[in-house]
Amino acid sequence: MRIPNHIGIIPDGNRRWSVDNGLSKDKGYTYGLDPGLSLYKLCKDAGVKEITYYGFTTDNTKRPALQREAFVNACVDAVKLLSTQDADLLVVGNCDSPMFPKELLPFTTRKTFGKGGIKINFLVNYGWEWDLSNLNQNKSSKRSNIINCIKTKDISRVDLIIRWGGRRRLSGFLPIQSIYSDFYIIDDLWPDFKSEHLTNALNWYDQQDVTLGG
Amino acid sequence: MRIPNHIGIIPDGNRRWSVDNGLSKDKGYTYGLDPGLSLYKLCKDAGVKEITYYGFTTDNTKRPALQREAFVNACVDAVKLLSTQDADLLVVGNCDSPMFPKELLPFTTRKTFGKGGIKINFLVNYGWEWDLSNLNQNKSSKRSNIINCIKTKDISRVDLIIRWGGRRRLSGFLPIQSIYSDFYIIDDLWPDFKSEHLTNALNWYDQQDVTLGG
Repeated sequence: MRIPNHIGIIPDGNRRWSVDNGLSKDKGYTYGLDPGLSLYKLCKDAGVKEITYYGFTTDNTKRPALQREAFVNACVDAVKLLSTQDADLLVVGNCDSPMFPKELLPFTTRKTFGKGGIKINFLVNYGWEWDLSNLNQNKSSKRSNIINCIKTKDISRVDLIIRWGGRRRLSGFLPIQSIYSDFYIIDDLWPDFKSEHLTNALNWYDQQDVTLGG
Repeated sequence: MRIPNHIGIIPDGNRRWSVDNGLSKDKGYTYGLDPGLSLYKLCKDAGVKEITYYGFTTDNTKRPALQREAFVNACVDAVKLLSTQDADLLVVGNCDSPMFPKELLPFTTRKTFGKGGIKINFLVNYGWEWDLSNLNQNKSSKRSNIINCIKTKDISRVDLIIRWGGRRRLSGFLPIQSIYSDFYIIDDLWPDFKSEHLTNALNWYDQQDVTLGG
């Protein structure tokens, strides 16, 4: 079976899940922690080499303060949880902004936790315009030069993007690394994660070809 | 009904259609001309303000010469066909390369044909790295500055991308304008275009929300 080297995870639907479950919108994020850990374990067992979690974006920080605090806290907890596992862990985002949680600053250089062996990238206060803002140092239109100038240059090309919550869009997720990615959409909301979701996505991916636009 | 201002068209599956119909791979492209014209008319009637057709890319030009000549000729014919209609037409792509067909050079500044009224962009010898190669002139990380520095700055944000041929990927299509786009995938191959495809895509789009990442 052809396993993607790198999977991008868009864990959407936390607020809709909260409302569906009679909770206020901010309450759903903590219910996404266990899914994130389960997914990590399943990917590692499947032989995936790299995972990128879409934590929160600069766009997201415009939401009401109560929701913002809830998703920021959930991201801090998620990174800490992942740091108890075997992982080469990196938090990536605009850490010059007050929206970046200070607790995550030590994670902004890649470190090996446990036995390492799988790269985990966690996007925190990420903005696509921030990611592209160093391209003024680019000297040519070679792909490799563009890729070396983006802020997220430590994150490799994404093979498969899985999005929960039914929306069929990137919402700003790593525009350069997503150029040739295959997208798989799951209608269930992220807190309702089931291992079959990943199995189905991997089975679907196995049937795709890889042309890189050729 | 909420109609997208701008639709991106990825007309994929011409080679598979050729093979399915007992033809050599290069023969399918001309069967995509009528679909392109039908789609234009349907979009115009629906009130769409802008359409971008994904003609061919710098990635595509690495294919065998016979196929390359066939898709280049089909793009030239498609642009000429669209220029017989009411449209504000622009061909966009790397025209400093020998792969850019000379016949299309007069179309690289936007011109009004007939009564105009709908913007049509046709990507010819387009490459995402070419599109981003002027970002070295960008002076800040403001979105507006990035958008003003890309080569395709005359092409606005895409609301809905429709791809034929079942693949669920962008394949390099306008990475900046696609950041918040909704994707709609049609399994039928492009030469098998039916008006219901567009109707279904528009009905689906009408049910989506617009958050622009917020």
